[in-house]
Amino acid sequence: MTELKSCSAKELESFLENEKRRYMEFKNSGLSINMARGKPSPEQLDTVEDIMEAAGTDSYIDENGVDTRNYGELSGLSCAKKLFAGILVTVPEKIIIGGNSSLELMFDFLCQCMFSGIGGHDPWVKQGKVKIIAVTPGYDRHFAIAEYLGLEMLCVPIDKNGPDMDMVEQLVRDPMVKSMFCVPKYSNPNGYTYSEETCRRLAALKPAAPDFRCIWDNAYVVHDLYGTGDYLPDILSLSAENGNEDLFVEFASTSKVTFAGAGISCIAASDANTREILARMGIQIISFDKINQLRHVRALPDMDAVRRQMERHAAILRPKFDIIAETLEKELGGLGIASWYKPNGGYFITLSVDLGSAKHVGQLCADAGLTLTKVGAAFPYGKDPDDSVIRLAPSYPSVAELKTATELLCTAVKIAAAEALLV
Amino acid sequence: MTELKSCSAKELESFLENEKRRYMEFKNSGLSINMARGKPSPEQLDTVEDIMEAAGTDSYIDENGVDTRNYGELSGLSCAKKLFAGILVTVPEKIIIGGNSSLELMFDFLCQCMFSGIGGHDPWVKQGKVKIIAVTPGYDRHFAIAEYLGLEMLCVPIDKNGPDMDMVEQLVRDPMVKSMFCVPKYSNPNGYTYSEETCRRLAALKPAAPDFRCIWDNAYVVHDLYGTGDYLPDILSLSAENGNEDLFVEFASTSKVTFAGAGISCIAASDANTREILARMGIQIISFDKINQLRHVRALPDMDAVRRQMERHAAILRPKFDIIAETLEKELGGLGIASWYKPNGGYFITLSVDLGSAKHVGQLCADAGLTLTKVGAAFPYGKDPDDSVIRLAPSYPSVAELKTATELLCTAVKIAAAEALLV
Repeated sequence: MTELKSCSAKELESFLENEKRRYMEFKNSGLSINMARGKPSPEQLDTVEDIMEAAGTDSYIDENGVDTRNYGELSGLSCAKKLFAGILVTVPEKIIIGGNSSLELMFDFLCQCMFSGIGGHDPWVKQGKVKIIAVTPGYDRHFAIAEYLGLEMLCVPIDKNGPDMDMVEQLVRDPMVKSMFCVPKYSNPNGYTYSEETCRRLAALKPAAPDFRCIWDNAYVVHDLYGTGDYLPDILSLSAENGNEDLFVEFASTSKVTFAGAGISCIAASDANTREILARMGIQIISFDKINQLRHVRALPDMDAVRRQMERHAAILRPKFDIIAETLEKELGGLGIASWYKPNGGYFITLSVDLGSAKHVGQLCADAGLTLTKVGAAFPYGKDPDDSVIRLAPSYPSVAELKTATELLCTAVKIAAAEALLV
Repeated sequence: MTELKSCSAKELESFLENEKRRYMEFKNSGLSINMARGKPSPEQLDTVEDIMEAAGTDSYIDENGVDTRNYGELSGLSCAKKLFAGILVTVPEKIIIGGNSSLELMFDFLCQCMFSGIGGHDPWVKQGKVKIIAVTPGYDRHFAIAEYLGLEMLCVPIDKNGPDMDMVEQLVRDPMVKSMFCVPKYSNPNGYTYSEETCRRLAALKPAAPDFRCIWDNAYVVHDLYGTGDYLPDILSLSAENGNEDLFVEFASTSKVTFAGAGISCIAASDANTREILARMGIQIISFDKINQLRHVRALPDMDAVRRQMERHAAILRPKFDIIAETLEKELGGLGIASWYKPNGGYFITLSVDLGSAKHVGQLCADAGLTLTKVGAAFPYGKDPDDSVIRLAPSYPSVAELKTATELLCTAVKIAAAEALLV
């Protein structure tokens, strides 16, 4: 197909008219499709039921004789620590088990740093205006936490290899830069996995702030869709090799392994970090839900079981990613108005529109019954400087719905681009 | 029995010798009994299993069609709100459902007040040195939160009618007094229930601080042991009648209804308070575990089911409270060296030693194999000004163990008292 930029005004007008007609057809067909969030489909949740229900009927006593129904075991069951150590390729001693939400653990860890301090240093809030590196586009809920806590976000762009490390290395020379949000594997929303080189440079960072702590949100660590998936080194051992063992605090959960709303979560960190986190946790709670921990360990007794379960998710998700990528290629390939990356796993595909505005595209889609993630949400304060990024969340709708939705989306992209070129 | 104070030195010496002999018998018998915490016994947890297991096998969809396995419903399932509205005698609209721990909700609410502010006011921490009223003796985990957050605790004594309201009314004239910890029913550790008059005076408080919020920890709201239990008015409606609807934030959980480590918790509060709490919660978490909420509602579909369940707990706990009260009366009655109150519910009995030191008693018990709650723990910073309060937690040991434990305890009290009188 010819690039839209090299078309004449007349060709563009005819192109626009054609796409507008198509758009009206979509609009009149009464669509209602929601691609806004990375929410598993009921079919995915069904794959979990049999393993979880089988697990639920056993006794409540764990292998060490702990009665999971009662109080106790602040840091979690040792069998649950083993499960996450397998998932994160680390050791159980570094693991603390939380409730059903790793986001809650991240929120609380940042609160701890801000208001109580970490590493024996003053609370961040007492040291001045605290800054945090926001890899963009990124996860809107991370940015919402930073905004809520009054952290100033410094944007660092991401490409296929991860965040721009030259910029990161420059920024951490400022002692008020105290943290960074990373989704290192199948990053939300692009689906990029940080390269080994990027991880090595991160692990070797020398921040001016002695109480710098990177939020390593490994949300999609076993969430491969194609083949063996992308490789990500274990950041905890890599940073320890560099004498940086306290620099990274890692988070994960089974939200997208078992149940999105009723999984278990964890923190993985150095001895010093886990000690400080547990000291606070001991004030905050007596213990998290250990019955659910035991249920999970029985459903997922080893890494083979985890891989089998993830393959069941992948079997449902792959056709959804495929249909979006195929449709994007078919509709937008060669037009020179948008680009995208088909990831090897995770929950999102990002479409970047080069011509025309992402907001305009979002509005056209909404008007025709397709709800996308709020345009701009992948950026701090909801402001995409280029008005370019559109996050697609393929998990919830059906394959047929996704085909229609992506066709509608492409039509909207074409309309916006042609209109922009005609101005 | 004669009061020990009116005994001659010779009588006292003989008394002491006798009790020391008895003590050595206990010590040599190799006891190992733990009465430190209000931890339900395995027998109590067993009473829950049948109802919870029956509940667990149904579908995951609630009465409104919500798929409890997935993300969503930040404030909790409406059926879970109804359950807690029944328990707290309020309306579902005032309820927010949390995770497995009401302590975590209290901790977080105080963090919100401290570092983000409440009621549109500046964060407490920005207003100066914040003070909180600590009803003493009280719950050690409350005091630990206050200490962690740097709140200065002002002790107000409690008697059978609740906290000393003259003192409370006086203290809240200071605008830096911004909160108060209350366990209004079967208070931890005495087991007193606030009288209606006390509740009315609390509900009508006029604190100088416009952002005063009382932590109303209704941990034992349905935890009656004898008859219909004590009456406690609904503080939310009582305070609303006084134009004080934002003054109280109430907390409860099913930790001692179902499973201590895997129940569900809630906040009950005014519209303004719930709105502010949910605004923060929406940053902190996507949703709490709704499968566990649904499981609970199915196990406890109405207040009759709750009452039936609590009667099963009571049937196990009553003989334990009885044996302690009987033994205390038999061993210490009339000696004039200690006093206690047998509560109508809850999880604790408090023994106050008038002569001799509680610490000394605790040490004697520990040396003979009986672990009590750390003496002093019921007071801020672990300091009992009179060194008098010993908290007994009867729930975990068996009736036979409790009989032996209380006999040992009484022997220790008698030794300490006689020694004190002989000095």
